[in-house]
Amino acid sequence: MRVVASPELLMPAVIDRQSDVPLHRQVYVALRSAILDGRLLPGARVPSTRWLASDLGISRFPVLSAYEQLLHEGYFEGRVGSGTYVRAAPTTHNAGTADATAQELRPRRWLGEGGTRPFRTSLPALDRFPTSLWARLVGQSARKLTAERMTYGDPCGLAALRAAIAERLRVARGVRCTADQVLVVPGSQAALRLCAAVLVERSARVAMEEPGYIGARAAFEAHGAQVVPVPVDDDGLEVGALEAFGSGVRAAYVTPSHQYPLGSSMSATRRLDVIRWAARHDAWILEDDYDSDFRYVSRPVGAMQGMDRTGRVVYLGTFSKSIFPALRLGFVVVPHALWEPFVAAREALDIFPPVVAQMALATFLEEGHFARHIRRMHGVYVRRRSALLEGLRRECAGLLTVHNADAGLHVSTFLADSLEDRDVVARMARMDLVASPLSSCYAGPHPRSGLLLGFGGSDETELLTAARTLGAILRGMGGSNHRAQARGGQTGVS
Amino acid sequence: MRVVASPELLMPAVIDRQSDVPLHRQVYVALRSAILDGRLLPGARVPSTRWLASDLGISRFPVLSAYEQLLHEGYFEGRVGSGTYVRAAPTTHNAGTADATAQELRPRRWLGEGGTRPFRTSLPALDRFPTSLWARLVGQSARKLTAERMTYGDPCGLAALRAAIAERLRVARGVRCTADQVLVVPGSQAALRLCAAVLVERSARVAMEEPGYIGARAAFEAHGAQVVPVPVDDDGLEVGALEAFGSGVRAAYVTPSHQYPLGSSMSATRRLDVIRWAARHDAWILEDDYDSDFRYVSRPVGAMQGMDRTGRVVYLGTFSKSIFPALRLGFVVVPHALWEPFVAAREALDIFPPVVAQMALATFLEEGHFARHIRRMHGVYVRRRSALLEGLRRECAGLLTVHNADAGLHVSTFLADSLEDRDVVARMARMDLVASPLSSCYAGPHPRSGLLLGFGGSDETELLTAARTLGAILRGMGGSNHRAQARGGQTGVS
Repeated sequence: MRVVASPELLMPAVIDRQSDVPLHRQVYVALRSAILDGRLLPGARVPSTRWLASDLGISRFPVLSAYEQLLHEGYFEGRVGSGTYVRAAPTTHNAGTADATAQELRPRRWLGEGGTRPFRTSLPALDRFPTSLWARLVGQSARKLTAERMTYGDPCGLAALRAAIAERLRVARGVRCTADQVLVVPGSQAALRLCAAVLVERSARVAMEEPGYIGARAAFEAHGAQVVPVPVDDDGLEVGALEAFGSGVRAAYVTPSHQYPLGSSMSATRRLDVIRWAARHDAWILEDDYDSDFRYVSRPVGAMQGMDRTGRVVYLGTFSKSIFPALRLGFVVVPHALWEPFVAAREALDIFPPVVAQMALATFLEEGHFARHIRRMHGVYVRRRSALLEGLRRECAGLLTVHNADAGLHVSTFLADSLEDRDVVARMARMDLVASPLSSCYAGPHPRSGLLLGFGGSDETELLTAARTLGAILRGMGGSNHRAQARGGQTGVS
Repeated sequence: MRVVASPELLMPAVIDRQSDVPLHRQVYVALRSAILDGRLLPGARVPSTRWLASDLGISRFPVLSAYEQLLHEGYFEGRVGSGTYVRAAPTTHNAGTADATAQELRPRRWLGEGGTRPFRTSLPALDRFPTSLWARLVGQSARKLTAERMTYGDPCGLAALRAAIAERLRVARGVRCTADQVLVVPGSQAALRLCAAVLVERSARVAMEEPGYIGARAAFEAHGAQVVPVPVDDDGLEVGALEAFGSGVRAAYVTPSHQYPLGSSMSATRRLDVIRWAARHDAWILEDDYDSDFRYVSRPVGAMQGMDRTGRVVYLGTFSKSIFPALRLGFVVVPHALWEPFVAAREALDIFPPVVAQMALATFLEEGHFARHIRRMHGVYVRRRSALLEGLRRECAGLLTVHNADAGLHVSTFLADSLEDRDVVARMARMDLVASPLSSCYAGPHPRSGLLLGFGGSDETELLTAARTLGAILRGMGGSNHRAQARGGQTGVS
């Protein structure tokens, strides 16, 4: 057995805590450079995450995260029970026409690595998407390109698409809107950036559900906001806790149809409470209806925006879950009072959306394909969800508790508090499974340990197999801190 | 003749100077509301811009701008020599499947209104674009959609496209780069936003060419930068003036291949001076190579980035001029030292670029269609440029001086200082011509009067006709302040 590479050798560069580059990324880059420079040779054993973290004087999370990525990208390989090693020939997961250098430098994505592997959250049934039909509409749209359509277009989006979106939202979600309130944007992250740009002055407070969506937090913080976490209970955001912040809160970000990540839907009473809170404090409500098309228990819940008579709700959504993520189209429904600054901010972002994708999507909506696709996918997701729940019952009983599976494309689960969910996720990655750790959705000091298990992107067989693997991983970790630590020295990612 | 509507009737809302909504937009909305509410009836004469501006206590520019838009959108109609009137039935310029309400609320675009009308700047020869070929590539790409391609993709862009862009820039522009430095972004405005997000702390100084590109200024100011104007002479940015700001300047934004708007190219000596300045002050250079594919006089000038050995140049460009604006794809070539924060900022903007357009563009580049298209367009633009210059010689001699027509898609011209270029542009709009006023490109107090006349988007006949119309307008304005004012009361937009 080879000598373990020393951390000094691995990390000639001092970790810079003041840098804009996140710690996990600094660790990742330093390790990868050591491999690419030949300082760390194939077959060398890598120090344990615990040792390296302690040596660098940083927490173990960034080190785990860096190891996880290097394993995923094929720089490292892990041998259960005998540590982590530098792999002989780095491989990548992405195939295709890839330029090798570009692939090597592919950064970690904060929407989560994982391509289309089992349990990846936010992933629709891409295998069931009507690609031929879509390709036909895209081809047709491209053939209809005229000079008028190829020139600089309306920053708000194509009129036909805006009208189709408004119609769909009125009918399917009870949103009170007309086409002239709809802004087409490149996905919901961009929508969040617009909300932040328009509504958040520097140092302003924005309330977020705790736990909540990390992408929203990033968008608000990028605009200098101070994010204040407000707990959620089974009825949704605890308005009492929100009220306790007084009048200093400029906006509240909520996911009333399907709380991200926990999964509950906000009760009607609570929705009215939030709307009244906003009116009282002259604040705004940002309603993110990110995957509201799919609900499996009780009747569909309409949008909160439809209950509001005060014009204080900015409603946003995306086609990433209902069509596919790489389409990059989403929308914002803007209260009349905010229209002008929203259009200005939308234009300042990237001027206007691309035309061919908009034309194809407008036709997809207008000709009824969208509604049909959603209906079909509902059936697909009912089956996938059942398979996952059945698999978890069979394979993970006593190891993991299903908290909510009422709607959307993921199941939220809790782990024993003695198990760190990031440890579990790191071990899952080595078995080609990808899941989001619940603890990463908390801004405050008391995260719960759990897993968000996506079921949209995998078929029933894959999900049952994945549940079996997850069960084995959890049983292997023993569920107790003591045993997990005792095994720490023997496994690479620990 | 009807009584002129009083400003009080038109403007029940007080103009709010503190508002985020620009003044011209406030005036526009107030006037349009008056029409839609029926307070201002069809056929009513609208007060002169001078009267309304004085009554509102604001400058005439925002009022002119609002009138121009209302004329353009068909709410107003102008009768030369007899004022501006509310039109009987509002019409819109955009045809198609438009939702009427959405159309009415279409905002003014800061890249300039004008669709594809003569003299519009930044517009390529859309009538000569190989749309059938493009439609075929787009259709092919859409048919190649797989789950792996439809899921969340690389924030940096498709590897094949990044490689093809790097190759093109190395060969055609002398950029020193590999694919792993290329970020695919939705156009150059987004590229500017990324530069601002990564490089500009709040209140940091960014130097800009004076006159310069208004979109860049907007991007830097959106991130809280303090923009300092640095004059340009025939050799480009005056480095002495830049040096005078000392070490407080974080970055300098330059357009060395084709100074926007004046048109000169930066001399080699000056480029080296700017690079040395950046090294001395630990500053960055943002090189915007927005329309460098087309040059008509002397040999093509390579990118400044290729001369830099210090890694201080961020190079950005767009396919809006070489393909078409509604494609919404551009790129940034990032120095290695800035790669990580640029990727993080790119991801925080809108996660990653749409896949089908990227696939089609990669093939367009890889199969040589792009290089062929650029060569063909060069010939087209040589002819269009000649037609415009000939037209200006014939029709505008003594009224307008051509300053530079060496490169790109527009000719920069100067007007007599006694003529306000915005007045001229407003009159041109009434004759269905669209041009950019040179004065709007100045941040400082001494703007020059001039017109930027685009020739890319119109054929030779259209350009000759447009030059004749422009000559008539300029002759009609007499070129002297005295006469222009004397006529002010009689024409609507004056």
